[in-house]
Amino acid sequence: MNLILLTPAEIQRERLACVRDPRRLRHLREVHRAQVGDRLTLGVTGGGIGYGELVRLTDDEARFALGAFDTPPPPPLPVHLVLALPRPRMLARSLEHLTALGVKQVTLLHTQRVEKSYWQSPELAAKKIHEHLVLGLEQARDTMLPDVSLAKGFRPFVEECLPALLDGRRGLLAHPGMAQSCPRGLNEPTVLLVGPEGGFIPYEVERLLAAGCEGIHLGPRILRVETAVTALLARLF
Amino acid sequence: MNLILLTPAEIQRERLACVRDPRRLRHLREVHRAQVGDRLTLGVTGGGIGYGELVRLTDDEARFALGAFDTPPPPPLPVHLVLALPRPRMLARSLEHLTALGVKQVTLLHTQRVEKSYWQSPELAAKKIHEHLVLGLEQARDTMLPDVSLAKGFRPFVEECLPALLDGRRGLLAHPGMAQSCPRGLNEPTVLLVGPEGGFIPYEVERLLAAGCEGIHLGPRILRVETAVTALLARLF
Repeated sequence: MNLILLTPAEIQRERLACVRDPRRLRHLREVHRAQVGDRLTLGVTGGGIGYGELVRLTDDEARFALGAFDTPPPPPLPVHLVLALPRPRMLARSLEHLTALGVKQVTLLHTQRVEKSYWQSPELAAKKIHEHLVLGLEQARDTMLPDVSLAKGFRPFVEECLPALLDGRRGLLAHPGMAQSCPRGLNEPTVLLVGPEGGFIPYEVERLLAAGCEGIHLGPRILRVETAVTALLARLF
Repeated sequence: MNLILLTPAEIQRERLACVRDPRRLRHLREVHRAQVGDRLTLGVTGGGIGYGELVRLTDDEARFALGAFDTPPPPPLPVHLVLALPRPRMLARSLEHLTALGVKQVTLLHTQRVEKSYWQSPELAAKKIHEHLVLGLEQARDTMLPDVSLAKGFRPFVEECLPALLDGRRGLLAHPGMAQSCPRGLNEPTVLLVGPEGGFIPYEVERLLAAGCEGIHLGPRILRVETAVTALLARLF
């Protein structure tokens, strides 16, 4: 927690914030070992970043006197990430990683090699997804929540959603064995598609290429999804 | 397990291999759902990669008739990674990630912000480290084990080991706030130094820069160690 992320509702008056949830209180106490008088980095969801002075810390609440929140959050990556739904434990970690790295648009996609049971996972509840996004923001000192949408059918996604996504964006399909090595240092709007463990099936690759995506690869090594996503984002942008 | 990594001892005669450990047998059965007659990707530790036909699968062993092991493993990264010892759970994951990405020389370093208790962790036993390296190799279809060494004192490392490491290699100190953005697409021999959660302390940064390292950063976002290592390696090489 490199930033204490406040919701607008936690700012009681213009210059006072009150945090009551056990997770952040425990973190303040056990990791920050915070004491009254300490100056900590705070941000408000969707807004700026600044400092707050801890003026009260009890078992139930932490109160901060706020300075100006005039530092903007770090810039986002110019990417819409389309990720085949990973297994639940990896989903949680991947959401944190990609949020920390600055992705702001995510679509979780069904493909042939995504186990259907993954769509029933409690990790997909909006509240759980939100928790992981917040952890990623707190890690990276960011305040802008990513938007996560679910695409539970591959064909409807390709036929109905992908054309609009690719309008004005460069589509990159990351898949082992594609012809082009992953490009470096882009700053144009991009849609990045990443398959599941085991990859997209040939039919899916064909459809995505036919829709206008360029196939790219990261070399001969087969990486876990969470490693591949981080490596692709770090190399592309 | 995208490759079944054999030890030389598991190759009984030139063209027959026998796997008996429960982890790989369980994986063959439950994930690969392997059956007699299947052709699987195999490699031998320190050697080549090829195919093997499963000729027998019982509760206690899997036997393979081996083809030629004439595919070389994927190329290594030209980097010696010096990583401040992460907390045990993150160490395990980081070892798998960096092995999958192709790092072959690793030094785990003590710094001021590494908790001393981490050096007592069972995760540092040679056997445990070896297990995580093997998981990384199996993931990435590699056969060449990384060499992992421990440097339990910062000053002795800087004074006695670092000068030799930097002889003929470019030293890069990854640290937030350094002047230079992380370079891209290197292929020269490199030493990459990555600090602990919380970073190197100013004295350590000073010593490493004075020893000839260049300071580099990954932007304003603060990343977890495992994310930062993957992002740095993907961008540098």
